[in-house]
Amino acid sequence: MARYDFASDNTAGAMPEVMQALTAANDGFAAGYGADHVSKAAGDAIRALLDVDAEVRFAASGTAANALTLAALAAPHEAVACHEHSHIATDETGAPGFFGAGVGLITLPGASGRIEPAALAEALARPDQPHWQSAAALSVTNTTEYGALYDEAALKALIEPAKAAGLKVHLDGARLANAAASGFDVKAVGRLGVDVLVLGGTKAGSTPTEAIVLLDKSLSRRFGARLKHGGQLTSKARFLAAPWLGMLEDNAWASRAGHANAMAKKLAALSPFKVVHPVEANAVFVEMDEPTLKRLHKSGWFVYRFIDGTVRFMCSWATTDESVEAFAAALKAL
Amino acid sequence: MARYDFASDNTAGAMPEVMQALTAANDGFAAGYGADHVSKAAGDAIRALLDVDAEVRFAASGTAANALTLAALAAPHEAVACHEHSHIATDETGAPGFFGAGVGLITLPGASGRIEPAALAEALARPDQPHWQSAAALSVTNTTEYGALYDEAALKALIEPAKAAGLKVHLDGARLANAAASGFDVKAVGRLGVDVLVLGGTKAGSTPTEAIVLLDKSLSRRFGARLKHGGQLTSKARFLAAPWLGMLEDNAWASRAGHANAMAKKLAALSPFKVVHPVEANAVFVEMDEPTLKRLHKSGWFVYRFIDGTVRFMCSWATTDESVEAFAAALKAL
Amino acid sequence: MARYDFASDNTAGAMPEVMQALTAANDGFAAGYGADHVSKAAGDAIRALLDVDAEVRFAASGTAANALTLAALAAPHEAVACHEHSHIATDETGAPGFFGAGVGLITLPGASGRIEPAALAEALARPDQPHWQSAAALSVTNTTEYGALYDEAALKALIEPAKAAGLKVHLDGARLANAAASGFDVKAVGRLGVDVLVLGGTKAGSTPTEAIVLLDKSLSRRFGARLKHGGQLTSKARFLAAPWLGMLEDNAWASRAGHANAMAKKLAALSPFKVVHPVEANAVFVEMDEPTLKRLHKSGWFVYRFIDGTVRFMCSWATTDESVEAFAAALKAL
Amino acid sequence: MARYDFASDNTAGAMPEVMQALTAANDGFAAGYGADHVSKAAGDAIRALLDVDAEVRFAASGTAANALTLAALAAPHEAVACHEHSHIATDETGAPGFFGAGVGLITLPGASGRIEPAALAEALARPDQPHWQSAAALSVTNTTEYGALYDEAALKALIEPAKAAGLKVHLDGARLANAAASGFDVKAVGRLGVDVLVLGGTKAGSTPTEAIVLLDKSLSRRFGARLKHGGQLTSKARFLAAPWLGMLEDNAWASRAGHANAMAKKLAALSPFKVVHPVEANAVFVEMDEPTLKRLHKSGWFVYRFIDGTVRFMCSWATTDESVEAFAAALKAL
Repeated sequence: MARYDFASDNTAGAMPEVMQALTAANDGFAAGYGADHVSKAAGDAIRALLDVDAEVRFAASGTAANALTLAALAAPHEAVACHEHSHIATDETGAPGFFGAGVGLITLPGASGRIEPAALAEALARPDQPHWQSAAALSVTNTTEYGALYDEAALKALIEPAKAAGLKVHLDGARLANAAASGFDVKAVGRLGVDVLVLGGTKAGSTPTEAIVLLDKSLSRRFGARLKHGGQLTSKARFLAAPWLGMLEDNAWASRAGHANAMAKKLAALSPFKVVHPVEANAVFVEMDEPTLKRLHKSGWFVYRFIDGTVRFMCSWATTDESVEAFAAALKAL
Repeated sequence: MARYDFASDNTAGAMPEVMQALTAANDGFAAGYGADHVSKAAGDAIRALLDVDAEVRFAASGTAANALTLAALAAPHEAVACHEHSHIATDETGAPGFFGAGVGLITLPGASGRIEPAALAEALARPDQPHWQSAAALSVTNTTEYGALYDEAALKALIEPAKAAGLKVHLDGARLANAAASGFDVKAVGRLGVDVLVLGGTKAGSTPTEAIVLLDKSLSRRFGARLKHGGQLTSKARFLAAPWLGMLEDNAWASRAGHANAMAKKLAALSPFKVVHPVEANAVFVEMDEPTLKRLHKSGWFVYRFIDGTVRFMCSWATTDESVEAFAAALKAL
Repeated sequence: MARYDFASDNTAGAMPEVMQALTAANDGFAAGYGADHVSKAAGDAIRALLDVDAEVRFAASGTAANALTLAALAAPHEAVACHEHSHIATDETGAPGFFGAGVGLITLPGASGRIEPAALAEALARPDQPHWQSAAALSVTNTTEYGALYDEAALKALIEPAKAAGLKVHLDGARLANAAASGFDVKAVGRLGVDVLVLGGTKAGSTPTEAIVLLDKSLSRRFGARLKHGGQLTSKARFLAAPWLGMLEDNAWASRAGHANAMAKKLAALSPFKVVHPVEANAVFVEMDEPTLKRLHKSGWFVYRFIDGTVRFMCSWATTDESVEAFAAALKAL
Repeated sequence: MARYDFASDNTAGAMPEVMQALTAANDGFAAGYGADHVSKAAGDAIRALLDVDAEVRFAASGTAANALTLAALAAPHEAVACHEHSHIATDETGAPGFFGAGVGLITLPGASGRIEPAALAEALARPDQPHWQSAAALSVTNTTEYGALYDEAALKALIEPAKAAGLKVHLDGARLANAAASGFDVKAVGRLGVDVLVLGGTKAGSTPTEAIVLLDKSLSRRFGARLKHGGQLTSKARFLAAPWLGMLEDNAWASRAGHANAMAKKLAALSPFKVVHPVEANAVFVEMDEPTLKRLHKSGWFVYRFIDGTVRFMCSWATTDESVEAFAAALKAL
C-alpha cells in the first residue's frame, strides 16, 4: 500500500488532544444543532484565540464552509475575487457556484498564491455592467495554496482597497495554524476587517471540523437556517466543536503546526529537487519531471503534481523526523 | 440545566463501539476523500448488512444526504412525492429545494407518517403539465417521523406503483435501525427496488455520519464530484466511515436500537398522557396541553411539541431504565 | 378548433395601441439592454402612472418577473408568505424556488384569494428557528387569482404588520389594470410601502411584457446584472418597453381593463351556473360538475377547472358582447 | 444622440417581414404557452429549414435559451467545454452557472473564436476526479464571436471526439443566419449530431425571439415545465413564434444575413484600421488605440472595445451602404 505521509496534510489522523476532547465531549445528553455546552465553550475558545466578538459555527468540510459563507457575501449575479490558484477556484469542484446559485469568481494572478495587489486594483476599477458579474467580495488564503505566508501588511494591502470599494472579505484559513506558527498574529484577523474567517481544523490535525467565524455579526441573523438549508447543520454538533477545545486548550493548534512547518523546512533542506516556492509553512513544492514522479509513486510514496506543474510535499502534525528522512532518501534514490 | 434525555434521539452521545472504532481508525496515514481502507471496509459492512451490490458514501448530516440524493433523482422542474410530515418536508429548512435548484415537494397525507396509498395513486395519476412540477421520485421514511413502522408489504404498496409510473425511490432510513429492531428485514431494501437509501448513523448512536447507499449504481457516476460540489465530501473520510465498523461488527446498530425501542415501550406504558401514535420504534407521542408542557419544561425536562400538535418523547441507545422511570415520575407529578 | 375566448386573459392578442407602439418603436437603431429611448420613455410613463420615483425594467414573463424579484427580497434559507392559491404558489412550476435557490413559500388561507390577516399574523409570530425558513417577504396579488379586489385598506391590513415585522413586500400586479378599473387607486402602491411591483402588461392586452417596478430603489443596484444572470435581460429591450407607451398614453391600460371587467359582470349575470367568487374584475368562477364541463368542451368552448374545484371564465380587452352572449347561450344549452 | 448602427447587430429594429408576421399573428384568440397554431407553424418552418425531426420552443433571450438548455445537458457538478471567449463564457453574466446550479465552464483557446481541436482533446482526456467538474457537454458557436465561420468539417472535428467521449453538444446559433449566408449548410446541424441548437432570431433581424431546437428529442420530456420553472415559458407564445414565419417564408432570415455579411465586407475594405479577424460574417474587428476610440465616440459613433482588445464593428439587416460609407469616412477622419 502506498504511503500518503506527504500527499496532503489531510492524510494524517487526529492529534491526541482532539481524540481526548471527543471522548470527554461524549458524556451525557446535550441539546442539538449547536445549542450545546461544548459548542458554546469552543466558540469562546476561538473568540479568545482571535480576540474578537464573533459568531462561531462549525462545519464538517472546508469546501462547504467556504462556499456557504461566500454565498452570504456575494449575490448570485455578483462575483468573488480570489487568487487564480486558490482552493475555492481550483479544488472545490464548483462548490462556490453551487452554494452561490451561480456566483462568479474573478481569478487574479500573483506569485506563490499571493494575490498581486495591482491585479486586484484593476479588478476593482472595472465598472459595473449588466454583462458581467462585478466583485462583491474578496477571498484571501493564509497560508496560501503554495505554502507562502501573507504578513499583516500584505493582507492589508489587499483588504483595504477591497473594503474601500465596498467588498466584503473572506479569509480561507484552512492553514491559518501554519501561518500563526510562522509568525502571523491571528489577532490581526479582526483588525484587518475580515468579515468571515473559515478557521481550519482538519488540516491542523483534527477530525473533520472547520470553524465558521462571522466577524461581521450582522451575518449571523438566521445563520442556523442558512447552515441547515445548505446541509451544514450537524445535529450532534458537539462532535464538531469538541476538537477545538482539545486544540486550543494549550494551543496545540499552533504548536503542532509549528512542528509541521519545521518538518517542511527540514524536507526542503534535504530535497534533491529544486524548491520553487518559499517554504513558509508546511508545504514544499519542487520541480520534478513526469518519469521521475512515476518512479517515486512506484517506490511507494504518493504525492501530487499540482496545478502549477510542480510536485507538492505536505507535512502535518503527524510527520516525523524519521519519515522526512526516509522520504528524502527515497527522493535521492530516484 | 435542562435534561435533554427524551428531547430527541440526537441528544445522546455516541455508543462505545463507535468511539472505539474512531480510535482504531485514527492510526497512521490514509488517502483522503473516501479512497481510504476504512471507508472501503465500512462500505463492505453496509453492503453485507443489506446484502446488496451498491455504492456507499458517507455524509455528516442526514439533511444533506437526503437533499443531495433527491437532487440526483429529480430535476429542478420536477418534484419528489413524500409524506406531508416527512423530515424532508418539515424539518430540513428547504434543503431539498436548495440542493435541487428549486425541486418541488408533493406532500401526501397518511396516518402516523405512513403515506396513504390512495393519495400516492392520485398524485401519480396527475398528468404532466408545464404549469406544475410532476413527480420524478418518491421518498419514504422507515420508521416514520411518528415512530410507526412500514412492513415490507406496506412499502411495496407504495414503491411498486411509483416505479411503474417511472419514479425513482428514496428511502430516508434515519431510523432504519429502529425498524430493523422492530422486525423489518433490511435486506428488503434491495428487493423493493429502492434506488437510494440514506442509512442513519447519528440517531442510531454514532458521532455524525450517515451512509448514502446508491442501490442504483448508475447514480454513482461522478458521485464524488457531486458530493464535493455540494459540500459533502469530507477529506478525512475515515472518521465518517469508522463508526459503521463499530456499529456493524456485532450488529450493535440494531441491538442498541432494540434497546431504544424497548425503552419507548416502557415509557409509553408508564405515561399518564394519552399515547396517540403506535409505539413501534423509539418514539412516544402523547396528548399534552400547553400549560402542562410548560410545567414539564420548568421541572427540568425538555421535550418538543411536534408538528401534529402532540408532544414527542424520544428514546435512544443511551436511555436507561432509571431515566425512563424518573421521567415518568416527573410526568405523573405534573 | 376550440374557442379560447374565455379560457384565460392571455388567449387574446394585443390591443391596437400596443401594435401601433411596436411599429413606432421599430424605427432606427437603438442601444440595447434597456439603455434605449423607448425604455426610458416607458419607465417615465409608469412612474407617472404610479406617481413614484422607482426604477423600472421589463421582462417577457410574469413568472420570471415574480420569481426574480422575490429572489431579491428573500434569501434562499428564508421564505415568502403568500396566499395558498396565489400564482407564485400554484401556477409557476416552482419558479420562485428556482430563482431563489430553494427559497420557501409560506402559504396562507383566505377567501377568494385574499390573505386572511389573522393567518398572516400567525405566520409573522412564528419565531426564527434553524429548522424552518422564516418569512422575509410578503407577496400579495391584486386583483386576486379569484378575481377579487383588495381595496387600499385591505392591503394596508396586510402590509403594515408585515413591514413592522421587517418583511419586504411584493405586489403581483398581473391584473392591476383590472383592479384600477374597479376603483383601486394605483398611486396607493407607493403609499402602502410596496417594495417591488410586477405590473402586468400581457393580461392587460399587450404582447409579452411585464414591468418590474423597484419602489425600493436600493434594489436597483446591479439589477441589470441580476436580470441578465437570470435570463431576463432582453437585448432589443425597446420591444418590451414600447407596449407600455401604447397602453399608457391615453390610459388604454385601465380603460380596456374596465371593458374586460364589464364583460365579466355581464357574463356573470347571464350565467346559468352558480357564481362562487365576487366578480370584482375580469373573472367569473362557477360551480360546474365534470360531465357538464366535458359537454362544454365538446361544444367547442375551452375553459379550465381551477384549483379550488370551480370552473373559471376569463374576459379580456378583446372580449365582445357577442361572444359573451354566444358563450352564455352555450352554457344554457348544456 | 450617439449612433448605434455598428455597435451591435442587436441595435437594429426588426425587418418588415417580422413586423408583418406579428400583425398577422395578432388576430383572434389562441391557446397559451406554445399550444397555439402560430407556434406549431413556426416549429414546422424551422424543422423544414433544418430538415430535422426536432422539438422546437421559443425564448425571448439567447442568454436564457443557452443557459437553460446547457442545464439540461450537464449536471451541476459537471461542466460545459466552450471557447474562452464564447458568449456563454464572457457575455452572459454567469447565467449558465445560475441555470445550471453552479455548472462549470471549461474554457478552451482557439483563433478567432474557433476552438482549437487539440485543446478540446486535452480537456476530454482529463480523467474524472471528485475535485473538479468534468465535461458533460461541448458548446460551439457558429459564426463565432469574432465573426469567423466553422465549416462542416471544422465542426465535425470538434463534435466527433466530444460525442465519442460521451458529451452532449450545444450549438449557439445566435448568428447561424450569417453562417448560412456564408455557405454553411444548416442541414448539417442534424448530421453533425448536435443535441441542442439555439437558433438566433434577434440578431438575424427579429423582435426578441430565439428558437430552442431539441434535436435530441429525449430532452423534450417535461420541457415545458423546465421552461416555466426557468421563467422562459411565455403565455402569449405566438408573439415569439410569429417572427419565424416572417423570417423563413421566403428565407429572409438568410438573405438579409447575406446583406449584413456583405456590408461587413464592404466596411472591412474601407477600414483604415487593420482588420484582425477573418471577415466571414457580419463583424469587423480592428486594431484601434484608446485615444482613437474615444475620438470615434466623440464623433457620434458608438462601438465597443472587445474582450481581445480589438474594436468591433457589427453590421445587420438594417445596415445601409450609405451608413457604411459615412462610418468609414468618420473612421478615416480620426
